[in-house]
Amino acid sequence: MSNNCAVILAGGQGKRMKSELPKPMFEVLGEPMLEWVIKSCEEAEITDLCIVKGYNAEVIENYIGGRYHTVMQEERKGTGHAVMTAAEWLGERRDGNVLILCGDAPFVDADTIKQSLELHIRNESAVTVITSEVNDPKGYGRILRSADGKGISGIVEENDATDEQKKIREINSGAYWFRTEQLLYALEHIKPNNSQGEYYLTDSVFILLDAGFHADAYISPNPDVVLGANDRKGLLRLNDAARKAIIEKQLDNGVEFLCTDGVSIGRNVKIGVGTKILQGTIIKGNTEIGENCVIGPNCLIENCTVGSGTKLNYVQAYDSVIDSSVKIGPFVQIRPGCHIRSGVKIGDFVEIKNSEIGENTSVSHLTYIGDSDVGSGVNFGCGVATANYDGENKFRTVVGDDAFIGCNTNLVAPVKVGSCAYTGAGSTITKDVPDGALAIERGKTEIIEGYGARKLKDRTEKNHRS
Amino acid sequence: MSNNCAVILAGGQGKRMKSELPKPMFEVLGEPMLEWVIKSCEEAEITDLCIVKGYNAEVIENYIGGRYHTVMQEERKGTGHAVMTAAEWLGERRDGNVLILCGDAPFVDADTIKQSLELHIRNESAVTVITSEVNDPKGYGRILRSADGKGISGIVEENDATDEQKKIREINSGAYWFRTEQLLYALEHIKPNNSQGEYYLTDSVFILLDAGFHADAYISPNPDVVLGANDRKGLLRLNDAARKAIIEKQLDNGVEFLCTDGVSIGRNVKIGVGTKILQGTIIKGNTEIGENCVIGPNCLIENCTVGSGTKLNYVQAYDSVIDSSVKIGPFVQIRPGCHIRSGVKIGDFVEIKNSEIGENTSVSHLTYIGDSDVGSGVNFGCGVATANYDGENKFRTVVGDDAFIGCNTNLVAPVKVGSCAYTGAGSTITKDVPDGALAIERGKTEIIEGYGARKLKDRTEKNHRS
Amino acid sequence: MSNNCAVILAGGQGKRMKSELPKPMFEVLGEPMLEWVIKSCEEAEITDLCIVKGYNAEVIENYIGGRYHTVMQEERKGTGHAVMTAAEWLGERRDGNVLILCGDAPFVDADTIKQSLELHIRNESAVTVITSEVNDPKGYGRILRSADGKGISGIVEENDATDEQKKIREINSGAYWFRTEQLLYALEHIKPNNSQGEYYLTDSVFILLDAGFHADAYISPNPDVVLGANDRKGLLRLNDAARKAIIEKQLDNGVEFLCTDGVSIGRNVKIGVGTKILQGTIIKGNTEIGENCVIGPNCLIENCTVGSGTKLNYVQAYDSVIDSSVKIGPFVQIRPGCHIRSGVKIGDFVEIKNSEIGENTSVSHLTYIGDSDVGSGVNFGCGVATANYDGENKFRTVVGDDAFIGCNTNLVAPVKVGSCAYTGAGSTITKDVPDGALAIERGKTEIIEGYGARKLKDRTEKNHRS
Repeated sequence: MSNNCAVILAGGQGKRMKSELPKPMFEVLGEPMLEWVIKSCEEAEITDLCIVKGYNAEVIENYIGGRYHTVMQEERKGTGHAVMTAAEWLGERRDGNVLILCGDAPFVDADTIKQSLELHIRNESAVTVITSEVNDPKGYGRILRSADGKGISGIVEENDATDEQKKIREINSGAYWFRTEQLLYALEHIKPNNSQGEYYLTDSVFILLDAGFHADAYISPNPDVVLGANDRKGLLRLNDAARKAIIEKQLDNGVEFLCTDGVSIGRNVKIGVGTKILQGTIIKGNTEIGENCVIGPNCLIENCTVGSGTKLNYVQAYDSVIDSSVKIGPFVQIRPGCHIRSGVKIGDFVEIKNSEIGENTSVSHLTYIGDSDVGSGVNFGCGVATANYDGENKFRTVVGDDAFIGCNTNLVAPVKVGSCAYTGAGSTITKDVPDGALAIERGKTEIIEGYGARKLKDRTEKNHRS
Repeated sequence: MSNNCAVILAGGQGKRMKSELPKPMFEVLGEPMLEWVIKSCEEAEITDLCIVKGYNAEVIENYIGGRYHTVMQEERKGTGHAVMTAAEWLGERRDGNVLILCGDAPFVDADTIKQSLELHIRNESAVTVITSEVNDPKGYGRILRSADGKGISGIVEENDATDEQKKIREINSGAYWFRTEQLLYALEHIKPNNSQGEYYLTDSVFILLDAGFHADAYISPNPDVVLGANDRKGLLRLNDAARKAIIEKQLDNGVEFLCTDGVSIGRNVKIGVGTKILQGTIIKGNTEIGENCVIGPNCLIENCTVGSGTKLNYVQAYDSVIDSSVKIGPFVQIRPGCHIRSGVKIGDFVEIKNSEIGENTSVSHLTYIGDSDVGSGVNFGCGVATANYDGENKFRTVVGDDAFIGCNTNLVAPVKVGSCAYTGAGSTITKDVPDGALAIERGKTEIIEGYGARKLKDRTEKNHRS
Repeated sequence: MSNNCAVILAGGQGKRMKSELPKPMFEVLGEPMLEWVIKSCEEAEITDLCIVKGYNAEVIENYIGGRYHTVMQEERKGTGHAVMTAAEWLGERRDGNVLILCGDAPFVDADTIKQSLELHIRNESAVTVITSEVNDPKGYGRILRSADGKGISGIVEENDATDEQKKIREINSGAYWFRTEQLLYALEHIKPNNSQGEYYLTDSVFILLDAGFHADAYISPNPDVVLGANDRKGLLRLNDAARKAIIEKQLDNGVEFLCTDGVSIGRNVKIGVGTKILQGTIIKGNTEIGENCVIGPNCLIENCTVGSGTKLNYVQAYDSVIDSSVKIGPFVQIRPGCHIRSGVKIGDFVEIKNSEIGENTSVSHLTYIGDSDVGSGVNFGCGVATANYDGENKFRTVVGDDAFIGCNTNLVAPVKVGSCAYTGAGSTITKDVPDGALAIERGKTEIIEGYGARKLKDRTEKNHRS
């Protein structure tokens, strides 16, 4: 394979977004549109990328973080001008082909990239426009096919199109493959001969045809390749389209959705057959969920691995591993760094953070377990708190297998409760409890007779007054 | 009335569901499609049922649990073959009529069953096909009406239909009434003379017409009788259709919905006039809700009875009774076996389980009440826990009227707090507290001057270093 | 400007709502339809209002609470009759114009009111009908334009319209401007000459034309002016329309919505550019939210001011101020009267009520802070409770800057923890803690060896038996 690379145009501002954010940084399903474009290149094995930055360039730069080469478009004078800023970088890659993509058209896909390249090479084209056939072409540049049925004879913008041309349903997606050598030639000849005084990349098609080269177009079977967003409404439409497409794909895979309202699944999420996703559930990042789980309603799961047969009800979980046959919720937060082993039951109002919870352990209610290593078969009473932070450092708590932690116990770390050990309700445990021992802290208990009756009298009088 | 029975075909696999579950066991609004069909029969007073099981038959068997007779279809060779497996059972019921239903077409309704039977008897038909008139008949068998306007002359499948026949909008729902005697006759004559080598039940219509019997069709006013699901997308469509139909019905009854996103109401749920159901609310099972309640947002209520004027905000409640003028939430779980009496106020982060809460009692925050009998007018402080489980047994807690339970009190069951009694904040109560007494457990309190200043110095230094 | 006033017809029952509530009191986005109409008048600077009440008049009366004049329509005999009940009130305002509005058509807007008045005055009309041009005029009264193109020649009801007239797409919204003098004249001449025996306000147009006055119509650019609700389905449609319209407006303002399912924004809510509103979020009342916040999923915010850069995740907040760069959630309730200062972090299962929380203070989990004044840089451990209520009175708790409150501490108000002071885990603090001191309450701790092993034996035996 020859040397193939891509230039992604990411200099735009997106004025109608009313934001300081460069337009390609707006998110679809939690990822910048630019990232969608980059990932499609990577999936198509185009990994030599140059990103043209412009408006608030440091945002793009920080986001890319050196992963790929970037060049700066100081002024914004059209798509042709944007590509010119990459001319030097392209000059070092003359012998191959270059893909030009818009950083704010997120739905270009790897198959489209690969198959358009194949056509581009097979037909020995200087340029291959990636196109789409749509029912409503209004507003897009129309593709003019050659009379001989081989390749194209140009692209005509909406404003310049005749009534006949306006009926053409094949439109320009704004993405192109060029032979790099010929793109560089064309860039030297594009002129800002238009009312905007801009350099249009579409002109390169005519320049190359005039110079006797072959130009062609690849019709993508994915009509969404043309979609972009100019304002917040458009961005919402992209998000809705992406949400629905992913849910359709998951349905095809045998995932069950009973009501998709409020459901949002990231595109890298994997879900096993027979798992039910209930309304209001958001699954993001690199999450993998096993088979026959029930996730929802209203879960938010990010970067987690969840085993099969696990049930999560109103759970937020981040950067953690939850094994199979676990039952969690409602109203639980699993913060980063947890490993919840199989058979664990976690009830309501529980937070677990940076902890390992052993098999079949039960954490029923109103408990915080942080920075802890908990064995298997442990029972936590209600209201247990690990005091893992002294205002200065964080320490670990260790609880052995089959321990029984009484209600409202404080485990003041660093501390170790032995296996089979018990703690009495309301105890503050500051020293290690040996295996099999009971640790109990009790104050003096007083019973003051008649106290309640006096108080009730006051209470009642007060209520009558008020 | 003669002896009427029904055979429900539930042997199908549903390959495109990608699941081990027999297709009729897939759920619509939380109930298997098979259950929808059974309930419609029961409502129509057809209670002599035979269920034909096949693929993973034990799932059907376990679900039915002996409620109805089942027969096994060892091989799956068409609808006619499925009915043949019930031939012996039908042989014992020769003198009446039999309804044949598909176990995966959940929306057949009792009215359709009753009225089609009436027509069947009135016209002395050997078979009465239940049909529907639809705008898009594509893919369904078309009903051929007799030239004399009396009855039908056959059913023609899509593939065998002429262009003229394809325009017919009356389609076969797959449900039929037969005179049992004649069905048995027809079953003996159905032949697998088709490319699939299957026995088609539709052939019985021709067999009976040929034998000189009358065949007729009943057009159901409910077009959904024909709906089934072959894959997860179809199942989602059935769920959406059912959700919307039930919400429409509840709107007609005077229930208020301001936004139905994420709302799912089970078909057995009863809701009083003027009650508002807010977004994201799921109500399941045998739940009955009174008038002028506010339920939601995001409640999940299953098998509960809720009185009038009660407000539930972000509440999950299961198998419990909540009386009138109760206010609960946000973020509360009522677990099975509770009776929350009128005027009770339950605030945030509270779990109640298997307990009775007396009138006007207040449980404001971060509290767990399990296995308890709580009187009226009680006030629970924040963080109260009933320690109802010692790792071995569960015990009950009793709290008398007008008691006042201080913050972070542990009530270690079995224990009784008398009426009008008080417990001091942070006390662990292991013995009964007499009526009107104050029970308080206190340790020794030390004040160590200067401690904080030293710690703060460390904290600050550390923060500066980090 | 001459003396302009409005009469709002709010006497209707709304039988198909199945409710005791007068129809104009049904809510759209949390406000009675009547309130929408009143606010549009106020925005158009029409503040001399007379509200005609009828069915369950005391509900209207209590709601208006003396803000505006009301008159009683004892019987309900048509729109003309309803206006007649305001005749005396109108008699005191003869020299100006009067706007007649339906109290159950909530979407009449201030621009429509102002511009229709302008036309009314400019054309010296006796009556100006507010109209709308719609695609489906069915069921509405059609506007008959004069042959000379100046003004109108009448209004024809659906039932009386010729086939030609039925094609007219300009319809009567039911709102009108009258010169008050001429309205009073017309009211004297309206006759109940119709099958219903009712007095129709539309007749006044003919009466005034007959008397030689000019009648005109103002076509509102807002087609929703005609929308009303006769049953719960219609009310749901109004709510859906209002929800979508407000979200569109917020999108135009640069607010980001990634999925609008379950999202409901009140019409007085202000949201800054770049703020993301996630699914299931409800924002009500006089709420103002800054820029670049993330609100949701599933927040419920009412009457709050939220600064910029703040993140709320599963938060309910009422009548409070939350400053900038605050992070709250998931599962938190901010009850009325709070001021959460910038940089504060509030974690899960926390309730704050009627309290001030100083800058950069951290309240991580399972904590209730009520009636408190908390300084800056304070750290609350897990399970802290302010015991602010003794069953009789509520007292305040004061916590100084940089204090460190240990896990499961009870702060029994009135109490003051000094700045830089510490409390030990599990302590109940009933007396003031000096600045920089450590207060710690501890009971006697016992370690009972072998206890757990015995218990475990029992536990295991029991589990084997069961």
